[in-house]
Amino acid sequence: MAQELERPEVLGDFQNDIYAGGQAPPYPIDWRQLEAAALEALSPEAAGYLAGGAGGEETVRANREAFDRWRIVPRMLRGVGTRDLRTQVLGTEMPAPVMVGPVGVQQILHDDAELATAAAAGSLGVPYVHSTAASASIEDVAAANGAGPRWFQLYYPTDRELAVSFVSRAAAAGYTAVVVTLDTLVLGWRPRDLARAYLPFLQGIGLANYISDPVFRSRLGGAEGMRPTVERWIEVFANPDLSWEDIAWLGERTELPMVLKGICSADDARHAADCGAAGVIVSNHGGRQLDGAVAALDALPEVVAAVPARLPVLFDSGIRTGADAIKALALGAQAVLLGRPAMWGLALGGEEGVRHVLRSFLAELDNALAMAGYRSPRELSAQSVVPRP
Amino acid sequence: MAQELERPEVLGDFQNDIYAGGQAPPYPIDWRQLEAAALEALSPEAAGYLAGGAGGEETVRANREAFDRWRIVPRMLRGVGTRDLRTQVLGTEMPAPVMVGPVGVQQILHDDAELATAAAAGSLGVPYVHSTAASASIEDVAAANGAGPRWFQLYYPTDRELAVSFVSRAAAAGYTAVVVTLDTLVLGWRPRDLARAYLPFLQGIGLANYISDPVFRSRLGGAEGMRPTVERWIEVFANPDLSWEDIAWLGERTELPMVLKGICSADDARHAADCGAAGVIVSNHGGRQLDGAVAALDALPEVVAAVPARLPVLFDSGIRTGADAIKALALGAQAVLLGRPAMWGLALGGEEGVRHVLRSFLAELDNALAMAGYRSPRELSAQSVVPRP
Amino acid sequence: MAQELERPEVLGDFQNDIYAGGQAPPYPIDWRQLEAAALEALSPEAAGYLAGGAGGEETVRANREAFDRWRIVPRMLRGVGTRDLRTQVLGTEMPAPVMVGPVGVQQILHDDAELATAAAAGSLGVPYVHSTAASASIEDVAAANGAGPRWFQLYYPTDRELAVSFVSRAAAAGYTAVVVTLDTLVLGWRPRDLARAYLPFLQGIGLANYISDPVFRSRLGGAEGMRPTVERWIEVFANPDLSWEDIAWLGERTELPMVLKGICSADDARHAADCGAAGVIVSNHGGRQLDGAVAALDALPEVVAAVPARLPVLFDSGIRTGADAIKALALGAQAVLLGRPAMWGLALGGEEGVRHVLRSFLAELDNALAMAGYRSPRELSAQSVVPRP
Amino acid sequence: MAQELERPEVLGDFQNDIYAGGQAPPYPIDWRQLEAAALEALSPEAAGYLAGGAGGEETVRANREAFDRWRIVPRMLRGVGTRDLRTQVLGTEMPAPVMVGPVGVQQILHDDAELATAAAAGSLGVPYVHSTAASASIEDVAAANGAGPRWFQLYYPTDRELAVSFVSRAAAAGYTAVVVTLDTLVLGWRPRDLARAYLPFLQGIGLANYISDPVFRSRLGGAEGMRPTVERWIEVFANPDLSWEDIAWLGERTELPMVLKGICSADDARHAADCGAAGVIVSNHGGRQLDGAVAALDALPEVVAAVPARLPVLFDSGIRTGADAIKALALGAQAVLLGRPAMWGLALGGEEGVRHVLRSFLAELDNALAMAGYRSPRELSAQSVVPRP
Repeated sequence: MAQELERPEVLGDFQNDIYAGGQAPPYPIDWRQLEAAALEALSPEAAGYLAGGAGGEETVRANREAFDRWRIVPRMLRGVGTRDLRTQVLGTEMPAPVMVGPVGVQQILHDDAELATAAAAGSLGVPYVHSTAASASIEDVAAANGAGPRWFQLYYPTDRELAVSFVSRAAAAGYTAVVVTLDTLVLGWRPRDLARAYLPFLQGIGLANYISDPVFRSRLGGAEGMRPTVERWIEVFANPDLSWEDIAWLGERTELPMVLKGICSADDARHAADCGAAGVIVSNHGGRQLDGAVAALDALPEVVAAVPARLPVLFDSGIRTGADAIKALALGAQAVLLGRPAMWGLALGGEEGVRHVLRSFLAELDNALAMAGYRSPRELSAQSVVPRP
Repeated sequence: MAQELERPEVLGDFQNDIYAGGQAPPYPIDWRQLEAAALEALSPEAAGYLAGGAGGEETVRANREAFDRWRIVPRMLRGVGTRDLRTQVLGTEMPAPVMVGPVGVQQILHDDAELATAAAAGSLGVPYVHSTAASASIEDVAAANGAGPRWFQLYYPTDRELAVSFVSRAAAAGYTAVVVTLDTLVLGWRPRDLARAYLPFLQGIGLANYISDPVFRSRLGGAEGMRPTVERWIEVFANPDLSWEDIAWLGERTELPMVLKGICSADDARHAADCGAAGVIVSNHGGRQLDGAVAALDALPEVVAAVPARLPVLFDSGIRTGADAIKALALGAQAVLLGRPAMWGLALGGEEGVRHVLRSFLAELDNALAMAGYRSPRELSAQSVVPRP
Repeated sequence: MAQELERPEVLGDFQNDIYAGGQAPPYPIDWRQLEAAALEALSPEAAGYLAGGAGGEETVRANREAFDRWRIVPRMLRGVGTRDLRTQVLGTEMPAPVMVGPVGVQQILHDDAELATAAAAGSLGVPYVHSTAASASIEDVAAANGAGPRWFQLYYPTDRELAVSFVSRAAAAGYTAVVVTLDTLVLGWRPRDLARAYLPFLQGIGLANYISDPVFRSRLGGAEGMRPTVERWIEVFANPDLSWEDIAWLGERTELPMVLKGICSADDARHAADCGAAGVIVSNHGGRQLDGAVAALDALPEVVAAVPARLPVLFDSGIRTGADAIKALALGAQAVLLGRPAMWGLALGGEEGVRHVLRSFLAELDNALAMAGYRSPRELSAQSVVPRP
Repeated sequence: MAQELERPEVLGDFQNDIYAGGQAPPYPIDWRQLEAAALEALSPEAAGYLAGGAGGEETVRANREAFDRWRIVPRMLRGVGTRDLRTQVLGTEMPAPVMVGPVGVQQILHDDAELATAAAAGSLGVPYVHSTAASASIEDVAAANGAGPRWFQLYYPTDRELAVSFVSRAAAAGYTAVVVTLDTLVLGWRPRDLARAYLPFLQGIGLANYISDPVFRSRLGGAEGMRPTVERWIEVFANPDLSWEDIAWLGERTELPMVLKGICSADDARHAADCGAAGVIVSNHGGRQLDGAVAALDALPEVVAAVPARLPVLFDSGIRTGADAIKALALGAQAVLLGRPAMWGLALGGEEGVRHVLRSFLAELDNALAMAGYRSPRELSAQSVVPRP
């Protein structure tokens, strides 16, 4: 409907394609319906794993409620016909301030798993963040991702050399940043999974990066089969005594900019800056780690205020609509990461499903930005939003 | 039930007619039931179009919640037996500070479409605002509206001459003001419609004002049939680069007072005043354009404070009951516009249905005003309401 | 379960009777269940009339929500074994600060109507407030009420002599105060009743006080039958131009203390005091008159602060539990009035049902008072409650 | 899933056992499901008794809502691999700051009643607080509890000598503190029980401590059978005129530290300290006593501020998850008591069920503490949480 919908290339044509084609899209557009359809399509185990949060799932709820406490002030007649959502974060170009956040064991959602997600993201130029706990290897995901931008997420293992190996492989395979997740040194307490005794890693799912790693394999001492692999994985997966010094140590051993994920306080934001981080991600792991935690969006402003201006602050945990993204960007995020929404697409339609979700999200964000009166995410500021009275 | 219910003429007899007649009214009185009945009566496509909002529909919800944060302080024994709700806005007389807001493509709701709505409004003297995107032409609606007051709503096209043509036709057909909608330079992201690939304009519905326009037809270059018409319509419908200068330009080319619709901030209110607007409408398009936007009622006080006293401020987006109208009037609106409620009436009973809704609304407003202790909407002020604790 | 439950006589034995008897009570104890059972037992018309509120029923909801914003601070070990809930308001003794509020047309709820309610209240010594719009006459209700304390509620008619007649009859029949309702000069907009064209008065129900009145009858000019009676009633029922002077005028013509009901603002509280009122009732008519109005409890503190200390402030609109009563008393009410709860009892069991509700309420209040650490309602103060954070 | 889950012994292996075992646990993990399953398994009478609260159950709801107003700020990389949740309160060692709160008449939930609960608690070293109103005697519970730590809860009877006897028996049987409940001098108004005329004590259930007591028996004067026992019990159970002096009097007659339960205000906290209490428990009896009362968590900070630092403040009323416990501990509690959750376990699986609940709760708390960035509950402070915006 109208010319502005035809540009920019990646963003503008989605709505037009649907209406002009007169063909109902194969997957839902509304995020609540998308979620419902995806969970319905999955096994109870996989649905529980994907949807579940920690404890009483208060953090999951808090993440969403926080968005409702901010309202966008739409501004009129600001010449929004030519919009440019392109963003650069730590040298990574992206068509809009949106990335696919790291999610592990995608194999439980769709047979094509991370390869589908990476391919979909790559086809749109949307950065894909590959999880350490993935069901496809760093190299295979890079191949599927093609020319698309990609970052590597690290669960910092107890074995420092393995960390270095992961990061080196990522650099070699064209990943341009490393995201170190800080909030999962202990696995979250997840009643939905506990009630089903369901932890896919223990069945050998989600260990592709480990199995394909020479350092990891050398530590197996020649043992074969799933059991010793899983046992060794349990030993190395996470180090609850990981320290800021470990972070700095790794930073000195890679050229990749290092982004610290899971920052929810000004103090930790300062720690991150002090130990060489190139950026931070405000996140509470989508409510999957600490129940009762501060909503990620509520923590965003103080983190933005605490880090030096040179450090980009990214955001995840609760983003579902373009309006959500605008709020996070207005509160200081440089870009947002989508977790569960991309996975709903994967569950429903593999690569096509992920592409549907990403195209839909980008188009909605573009549309919302225009409606709010902005030509670029860079124009957003704290004045773009007001607290709900 | 009591004499005051029999006056003033238009307003007071509704309640009495029902009770004294002892006949249940043919359509619901409660707005939630009215909405439910209307949506039930419509096709899923039309129901989705009518009820739907942008994105996650947070703005739709916010609009309603905002009313609940204000409470009317009823005052006793203030001599409310003789009430006079008559109001004049920009020279237009109305029996109460209530208008029928602009809604397009009413054909999807009822075969009689805008002609029914305009006739119902006209029969009560309630101003009807005719939408550019209507399924009946400026002239046909004027005929149906008869002696009733009417305004014309403009979606400012990319073709300035077409804008002038629309406005000139409106002036010639007895419309006494032009409402320029600012918040729809891009079509809102509406999941309910996207999920059904449903945009009636692309089927040629809602183009009556264009098809009947000599400027629009001249631009078709002799092409015939729906397809070239729709294609041309897509080109001209909206200009995302529309500017305040465009507004001023149009203002210089019409004698009609120009009212700008979609103002949600003090800054834009000042812009409106500066570029020659004769009034503004605080509105977020009923939540159909920008998801996550500020509730219209929350934006009202600052707009009222920002515009010069000579400029009337009108209000739409969320008005459902007489109490809602009193709150908006107390916060500074000169009149309120009804959108969806009138359409529920149309969907259920054509002209009769719209009249039912309008009579019901006016009677409820009259009743509420009396109960609050006022004889006239002019007596309402910020002291008439208090925030909920 | 213990000795204190056996005193004082009226209050303490309810809980003990049930537990020791081992017999489930014939009517629900929980107010939500009581309401549901009563509405289930009634015709849709009567249920709608009883449960319904004005407009969107926002005031009904607001009344309840207001209680949840206050919390009682329980105090320990304050010697609550001997409690005395007896209260005196304007010379009327009552076993606890609880009255049965005025409710009209009880005939639609139970054949025994006001006679049952008055009898139940009288049997417990709880003051009964008889409505002008009742289905039993002043004198018949007095007889049913027996030695019980009773007040008369006045809908001040357009015919001043009729007002004087009502009040004189009340004084003669042992009513010890007159409650003048200020908030019903126009009948509330009640969608549930409008949707059924249901207004019992127009069927001649609820006119007993009028029919039995010599002044009213003299004005009929000899006409007979329901139709002229109803027509005359419509003429006299309410005067929307009633003034503070009319109130003062009536006050000078009766020895009964005059209590003004429907006060929701400090200004009107001062007006009340100035025109000779002996007390006021903070009330919004249970949400049946002005939709969107301030919650009655939210208005209570400012009314208490505005009236001279000699004027008792009573409270109705939303009281359902003993905790509610304690909050209203702590905020300055001298007593509370029960409306709908008593009617639920009436609907379910006539006189027995009302007695059940009153005994239950008094016992719960006694229990709650003890638990909060008070021996008497007089000990309650603003320090007894805190706002919810 | 990882090594830290294997320590400390009592706490860390729960999650690992489930996942590694690949066997779904026999009882729910999520507390809402646990509650639902337990209530489903019980008779309506027992379910009503267990789940019910006072009056409109506003306090029950308030208790839960209060937790949602606080949010934990997770801190990263603080070396949480070696955690030590061990706590000492008044000389009682416990593996974590968690106790099983006093609950009476457990016989209605499971045949093994208090013996099962005490055994489960004892097997984990979690302190068990034995209720005066229990269905097993002080001595039998001590035997079942074995080497586990235990406290005795006292409903201070009207017969002071009986109080001394209870406390002496408790001391002799290895109970190391006495918890005097202050908030039950009158039995709460509980609609669910009243509606069923269900009070188990009157059927002789829950009188084990009395029946086994020499002082109580001596007062029976040789009467035999349930009826005189119950009648005497009614006489002695509670003294609504209990005073701070009575508390001090008892304190002088026992070596056991005395903890006062039911404190919800700073003033009462000071009274407690003044009359010799060794500690206090902030509690509103899980919402079972005073309806409409302040949420226990809302009262916690002021009580902590009011008592001398030497007095430990414990907390119950609403704790359901590890996150809840962390919030209470951060706001100043030394430990929390679990009431209903342990009973849900008892109802579902006797001793095994209780152990499941306790192991699950301790493991979740350990997990949450690690995730929040703390090695010990002692590290928690008011800085660990923030109010919800």
